[in-house]
Amino acid sequence: MNAHAPVGRLIGVGVGPGDPELITLKAVRALETADVVVHFTKNGAAGNARTIAAGHMPDGITELALRYPITTEVAKDCAAYRDAMTAFYNNSAAEISAQLDAGRTVAVICEGDPLFYGSFMHLHVRLSARYPSEVIAGVTGMSGAWSAAATPIAQGDDVFVVVPATLPVPELERRLADADAVVIMKIGRNLPKVRAALTRCERLSRAIYVERATMGNAVMMPLGKKLDDVAPYFAIVLVPGWEHAP
Amino acid sequence: MNAHAPVGRLIGVGVGPGDPELITLKAVRALETADVVVHFTKNGAAGNARTIAAGHMPDGITELALRYPITTEVAKDCAAYRDAMTAFYNNSAAEISAQLDAGRTVAVICEGDPLFYGSFMHLHVRLSARYPSEVIAGVTGMSGAWSAAATPIAQGDDVFVVVPATLPVPELERRLADADAVVIMKIGRNLPKVRAALTRCERLSRAIYVERATMGNAVMMPLGKKLDDVAPYFAIVLVPGWEHAP
Repeated sequence: MNAHAPVGRLIGVGVGPGDPELITLKAVRALETADVVVHFTKNGAAGNARTIAAGHMPDGITELALRYPITTEVAKDCAAYRDAMTAFYNNSAAEISAQLDAGRTVAVICEGDPLFYGSFMHLHVRLSARYPSEVIAGVTGMSGAWSAAATPIAQGDDVFVVVPATLPVPELERRLADADAVVIMKIGRNLPKVRAALTRCERLSRAIYVERATMGNAVMMPLGKKLDDVAPYFAIVLVPGWEHAP
Repeated sequence: MNAHAPVGRLIGVGVGPGDPELITLKAVRALETADVVVHFTKNGAAGNARTIAAGHMPDGITELALRYPITTEVAKDCAAYRDAMTAFYNNSAAEISAQLDAGRTVAVICEGDPLFYGSFMHLHVRLSARYPSEVIAGVTGMSGAWSAAATPIAQGDDVFVVVPATLPVPELERRLADADAVVIMKIGRNLPKVRAALTRCERLSRAIYVERATMGNAVMMPLGKKLDDVAPYFAIVLVPGWEHAP
């Protein structure tokens, strides 16, 4: 990077959980003033972030799509998976770096909140020390879920826990029994395991199953009433706290 | 309620963590179309939600302020406190009910996200079964905090936990040691206890102290560098996960 060259600005833009109206004014302004909008994509299809942001992007704005190299659920402790993802994030950071070195403002759009389990974090750790940067908080997917389900999630001195359904069964069961309010993420093929763990700790009756909470094709139901084991990876289960609500 | 009378609509409106630009388009629209805007207040002063929403409320809109009866930090297991708060929420629900029975759309503005540790929850449980209602998710205070501090909070299979600093010391310490990422809320006079618990489980060096993250008078610093014990009740401490970030 030439010391006299213009230097751009990196912005991680949370676009919220799905409903395009659940984007913030600050995110809209960032999209309107960016030179380049970056999004992650799988199988070449527009991701949720791109769909949410579409109505707020100026016509003809430069876009950069970052294509995940691996799109099926593979074992994450596999070295080949880790290496492929590391190379992907390194290459993605290099592509964005080239834009920043050219003096452009780069907005990376992120479903939900950028620094809460988001892919943007991999770019942030690679670039934010080297370039002026900013992160615009967004409404998380889980906030969208409990709001759409009209379910108070935690109150007062409740302990609130987010756990991935990928945890080993005994650990999942321990976590479910040891919190007032729980959000279980990454349901997918882990649904039978989650249902069994909730049953054993006697919390199944409070559990709510949610897919795409704030989108047109939302699914919300008591988990006890869901009779099949089919769930997308991004489905979540809510176990609300505040058990002594008036 | 007369079966032939018009019936209004109750909307819990999350207005985000403080920066007026971190409000959603949906919340702005709710404020623009409501007949009555309701906010909670202490000591007669405008609360944060009212300050955040001020620029988005139409001139001359009807406002209803709900005044908390108790404004100092008192023991929450005290019966007199509980009774006073229950009466306050009952009376508040009755006031809003009268507006809804008159066919008005009532927007209750809430700092952060309405159903995540928010006062609105006390109105929601009293009114949402009786009136058409909706909850508009907002950016939480904690998302505002880790975004303003540019701190990735949780990634991958991290377990993320929110704990109140009001917990007994051994329980606080157990929770801090048993999670990848932690947000500690309600710091206030509990700061020495929090610092001691973080020191004992060897996580003080990662902890970040945050006040009013997205507002003009924000304070953010490593907790290890904060030398005094003065903290507002709504200060929070972040202990980020993702310890093996690249």
